[in-house]
Amino acid sequence: MNISRIVIRHLSTMYKDSATNLASLKPIEIKTWLDSFDTVLTDCDGVIWVENEPLPLATAVINKFIENGKKLFFVTNNSTKTRSEFVAKAVELGFNVDVDNIISTAYLAAQYLKAKNFNKKVYVIGTTGITKELEAVGIRHIGIGADNLQGTLTEAVRNFNPDPDVGAVIVGFDEHFSFVKMMKAASYLNDPEVIFIGTNTDERFPRPDRVIPGTGSIVNAVTTCAERTPTVMGKPNKYICDILEQQYMINPERTLMIGDRCNTDVLLGKNCGFQTLLVETGIHNAIDVEKFSRSDDSEIKRMIPDIYCSKLGDLLDHL
Amino acid sequence: MNISRIVIRHLSTMYKDSATNLASLKPIEIKTWLDSFDTVLTDCDGVIWVENEPLPLATAVINKFIENGKKLFFVTNNSTKTRSEFVAKAVELGFNVDVDNIISTAYLAAQYLKAKNFNKKVYVIGTTGITKELEAVGIRHIGIGADNLQGTLTEAVRNFNPDPDVGAVIVGFDEHFSFVKMMKAASYLNDPEVIFIGTNTDERFPRPDRVIPGTGSIVNAVTTCAERTPTVMGKPNKYICDILEQQYMINPERTLMIGDRCNTDVLLGKNCGFQTLLVETGIHNAIDVEKFSRSDDSEIKRMIPDIYCSKLGDLLDHL
Repeated sequence: MNISRIVIRHLSTMYKDSATNLASLKPIEIKTWLDSFDTVLTDCDGVIWVENEPLPLATAVINKFIENGKKLFFVTNNSTKTRSEFVAKAVELGFNVDVDNIISTAYLAAQYLKAKNFNKKVYVIGTTGITKELEAVGIRHIGIGADNLQGTLTEAVRNFNPDPDVGAVIVGFDEHFSFVKMMKAASYLNDPEVIFIGTNTDERFPRPDRVIPGTGSIVNAVTTCAERTPTVMGKPNKYICDILEQQYMINPERTLMIGDRCNTDVLLGKNCGFQTLLVETGIHNAIDVEKFSRSDDSEIKRMIPDIYCSKLGDLLDHL
Repeated sequence: MNISRIVIRHLSTMYKDSATNLASLKPIEIKTWLDSFDTVLTDCDGVIWVENEPLPLATAVINKFIENGKKLFFVTNNSTKTRSEFVAKAVELGFNVDVDNIISTAYLAAQYLKAKNFNKKVYVIGTTGITKELEAVGIRHIGIGADNLQGTLTEAVRNFNPDPDVGAVIVGFDEHFSFVKMMKAASYLNDPEVIFIGTNTDERFPRPDRVIPGTGSIVNAVTTCAERTPTVMGKPNKYICDILEQQYMINPERTLMIGDRCNTDVLLGKNCGFQTLLVETGIHNAIDVEKFSRSDDSEIKRMIPDIYCSKLGDLLDHL
């Protein structure tokens, strides 16, 4: 190993799992750290925007990363939008990105099947976010939209004629999720040859006085009655890294994952060998990280980021 | 401890976890074993009947148990029928039972709330099997029947006005289960004071070419987005035993649990300190038990019954 490789390796592991406060570093140290990665993956909600509002200076930081020649990817577990729809939102909010900067779980699911030369139909529990990505790679699908019980359960079971051409089931976010859809998915999955994909396993989206169930609730329902576990596309699963390595030639050691959730974003980084940065504008903060570091559970300790800062915008002065 | 107590204890633990084949025992040994219990709990489907057909000689065995003075209970995880509805079916098939011989999960859920002097409303994911049992103990409820998405998800969330009087959520079998019901249940359960009950956790009912999801699928969906685990009424949970001890003064050591599923029926027996009998007319048989006995997993070993026989009717000659 020559000296430059040793230096690079040293830089990329310098803050590994240390939960270092960015504010405690000297500008030259931050500069050295910024030079230790050339790919940036970032979560969206809670990191660069909250719903339809960009977070302070986040737009400038992302655009500066791109100007500086970093490969940049928005990595989202949301399966309800196509990559084009994400781009439209991002551009509207001022981010200089295009479709190649977006890694969404619907896109990953379509890529996963395409890589297998899948040529059957997909039974989809989900929205057009998924079906449009399937159509983009020429894969047929059924199941989208409302499908509620008509008449009795016995009638619904009798009237269900499984499509013999279905070779995969994708489960994503679906506000029309119903007992009938669950029955159909589990029935297709009874054939062990049928591929089972879950877009992500996020449990829920808390809102004031309401809880909106997340895809993880739907995935767990189907997993229980199918008595099978899906291949999950989204964070923190490693499949994202496979796609990025194969299609975009990223080097995991020289890749930074930025997020606001330690159990998805930081854990994705750990699972893929990326560097990690936690921003405190969303779910987790330094106090949570302090708790993780006191845990005896090695799985919880894996959620400790390399570096944290109060907001993504704190990087701007160093770029 | 006097000698008679020692003898009784010896009899009740004689075949403990031994997976003894009833056919290998001498008539006097079977007689002694039959005298070692005075309460009989039995599962229904796969033990005494299959759908609407009694199993061979099962009716005669059950009626003979009752004639011989055993306390007898049908113990079912099915939450879709009231106890009265179960009795109607059982009597139609020739069993000499009445409502006091039935322990169903809908009944248990109502008893559970009654014992807490619960006087608020229950949000029910389930059928009239549950709501009629609640009404029988004077407990109010909402939520039953179809409740599918009308318009967009945003509208559904906005139009949902949580009933401030809801103090419990019961999740049972519901062929109208929907995303909207899941959202409502999780929203009510966001208040930690709201009681969370699951009737049972059976995963599914396999049918030729179809899989009918079981209550466990619905319970797991709600558990995921509520980020809480329910108190489960059904087998293999110990709550059944509490009710039987309190209301019917049974002695667990002198109680036999009969079933066809080791992971619900036999495990209930283990969890409650009952004796256990597996009949091979349903899910599990001697070959499965042989597999359990070779496992290194202590949880799997707990599914080994004391005694097994090919069918319940094999007992008739000894009664």
